[in-house]
Amino acid sequence: MEKIISLAKRRGFIYQGSEIYGGLAGTWDYGPLGVALKKNIENLWWRKFVLDREDMYGVDAAILMNQEVWKASGHVGGFNDPLVEDVKTKRRFRADHLLEDAGVDPKGMNLAQMDAAIKEKGIKSPDGNALGDVRQFNMMFKTHVGATEDESSVSYLRPETAQGIFDNFKNVVDSFHPKLPFGIAQIGKAFRNEIAPRDFIFRVRELEQMEIEYFVRPEDWEAHFKAFEAEQISFLADTLGLSKDKIHPVLVPAEDRAHYSKHSVDTEFDFPFGQKELLGLAYRTDYDLSAHQEGSGQNLEFQDDVAGDKLIPHVIEPTFGVGRLVLAVLSDAYSEDEQGGETRVFLKFNKAVAPVKAA
Amino acid sequence: MEKIISLAKRRGFIYQGSEIYGGLAGTWDYGPLGVALKKNIENLWWRKFVLDREDMYGVDAAILMNQEVWKASGHVGGFNDPLVEDVKTKRRFRADHLLEDAGVDPKGMNLAQMDAAIKEKGIKSPDGNALGDVRQFNMMFKTHVGATEDESSVSYLRPETAQGIFDNFKNVVDSFHPKLPFGIAQIGKAFRNEIAPRDFIFRVRELEQMEIEYFVRPEDWEAHFKAFEAEQISFLADTLGLSKDKIHPVLVPAEDRAHYSKHSVDTEFDFPFGQKELLGLAYRTDYDLSAHQEGSGQNLEFQDDVAGDKLIPHVIEPTFGVGRLVLAVLSDAYSEDEQGGETRVFLKFNKAVAPVKAA
Repeated sequence: MEKIISLAKRRGFIYQGSEIYGGLAGTWDYGPLGVALKKNIENLWWRKFVLDREDMYGVDAAILMNQEVWKASGHVGGFNDPLVEDVKTKRRFRADHLLEDAGVDPKGMNLAQMDAAIKEKGIKSPDGNALGDVRQFNMMFKTHVGATEDESSVSYLRPETAQGIFDNFKNVVDSFHPKLPFGIAQIGKAFRNEIAPRDFIFRVRELEQMEIEYFVRPEDWEAHFKAFEAEQISFLADTLGLSKDKIHPVLVPAEDRAHYSKHSVDTEFDFPFGQKELLGLAYRTDYDLSAHQEGSGQNLEFQDDVAGDKLIPHVIEPTFGVGRLVLAVLSDAYSEDEQGGETRVFLKFNKAVAPVKAA
Repeated sequence: MEKIISLAKRRGFIYQGSEIYGGLAGTWDYGPLGVALKKNIENLWWRKFVLDREDMYGVDAAILMNQEVWKASGHVGGFNDPLVEDVKTKRRFRADHLLEDAGVDPKGMNLAQMDAAIKEKGIKSPDGNALGDVRQFNMMFKTHVGATEDESSVSYLRPETAQGIFDNFKNVVDSFHPKLPFGIAQIGKAFRNEIAPRDFIFRVRELEQMEIEYFVRPEDWEAHFKAFEAEQISFLADTLGLSKDKIHPVLVPAEDRAHYSKHSVDTEFDFPFGQKELLGLAYRTDYDLSAHQEGSGQNLEFQDDVAGDKLIPHVIEPTFGVGRLVLAVLSDAYSEDEQGGETRVFLKFNKAVAPVKAA
């Protein structure tokens, strides 16, 4: 991994964010070759999932949204990390990480259980001091829009592009009158105030997502889910040319699923630091559209002229992180050979994604 | 203008941001045809200014940067709007706008002068109450990065993409060893907490910029400035096909220039609501690189092997707002004719930018 990070910087792929000021943890900048690689991946995705299909509509929604969106979506209440504070230094740490470090598996534990386990084990902060109680910490970045800083002006940097799609569901239906199933796709930034950003561009605070919300009749969800599972693998292996043996679909256990999902499959990849999530696929049911219908008071029912009824469509969501794809491509392309007794490092890119092309 | 806004929504070009929740002022979402139009404009720009030139390097820097960047750049101290508060409702208003409404020209006035003029004229708030003193209001959106909310964790949503370029100047030089003159280009989001967003997608809180920082020897600044002036006009007229008679270069008077600029020319365009700024061009001198050398303690001098000396390069900055270009293209394309006694509205796009292409 260190070799890839060093090569990425030297050759102008990826630099530390705010580097001359010592960086800002969890932010990274793309250099000239990184931009070219990133654009290639984005363009290939847009072509495969939007331009080459008849059932897809692209949008590009604002990052700043009305705070009511995040109340309805459940992110104000539910998008949390469990944190615990060093009583002396006031620094905060992930409770689940401290438990893992102490040999306790925190999976499936609620806040009170983590709290009890930390106290029982006598776990101290990494600074050596006692720890306070385990608390929830919202991962959304908060800001204020307008001249006045009070509750009414709160806004958040979106933690997922998905809500910008749900918010435009009615607009797209009204402008284009699509039939079910159809999808809305978007490429854009999302932000998560990760307490422990790590693994280079893998777990970051500012990321680029490529997401589709695919609207289906509830009885059809499983067939569309399966189709997207295959399409995701095909994008990785056939479009980007990633090594097939490094790609592993993994069913997400119920206790690890996001609050909106009823069924999730992650596509994991053999990164240099282990097999980790590269893509996500979730069956979000009618959770979001129903929540927004309730929250906004707008009718978000879809008039299905083929079936002759009205319904809130269900949603299949394939999601792709651009940074993770860049990292997968970079690590898969990383090669070494020997020339005249010296190790030569080079990047063996698939021609579809190569940032520099020669003919 | 109302006709264009209505057409843009109906046909799926541009929707109000967070529309089902009544919107969030100053944010707009691009619908399927808007995304296609926007992508065409961005790709044409990237091709003309980056891919087709030998002297340009692309970057894509993070939106969230170390707060020290904005202290050094002058934005923490200097990126302000003059505001005045209604003493009763606590709502805040732009002091310069209130003065204009009262028939006073606020141009060139400092805070104390605006304050005196408001008091002398007895200007009241739009809500009918007395006003407090005129104060500076920083236009950057502020947030906190990490687990702790204090001064040390403050970060801002960048108000211009430019600083993401200056921060990577050294990285690009170290990776690619360019000769002067050379440029670094970027397309990305910027955010400004405008007190009075208005004119559809013209004055917004979240915008997309296409910027170049072009590094030159100080003695050459004027020639490069003139060259970019011509290139900007050519992009509008030849590349995008905008009507030439609607394009007007205007010298910016010294008192209206940004704090970093020694010479600025705006390219204005005949929008439906009048002749307004479409593009900017500024001679930023060595203001930013010198400020960052001072602020970061890093040596940002450039070793000029051709001239055989070391220097902080000077900067010419052509800047393009994607939203304003979309609006210029939409309003220029807007057409009406009569068919069978009925007015027909249509968009007569230049073929290079048309969101839907047929052959």
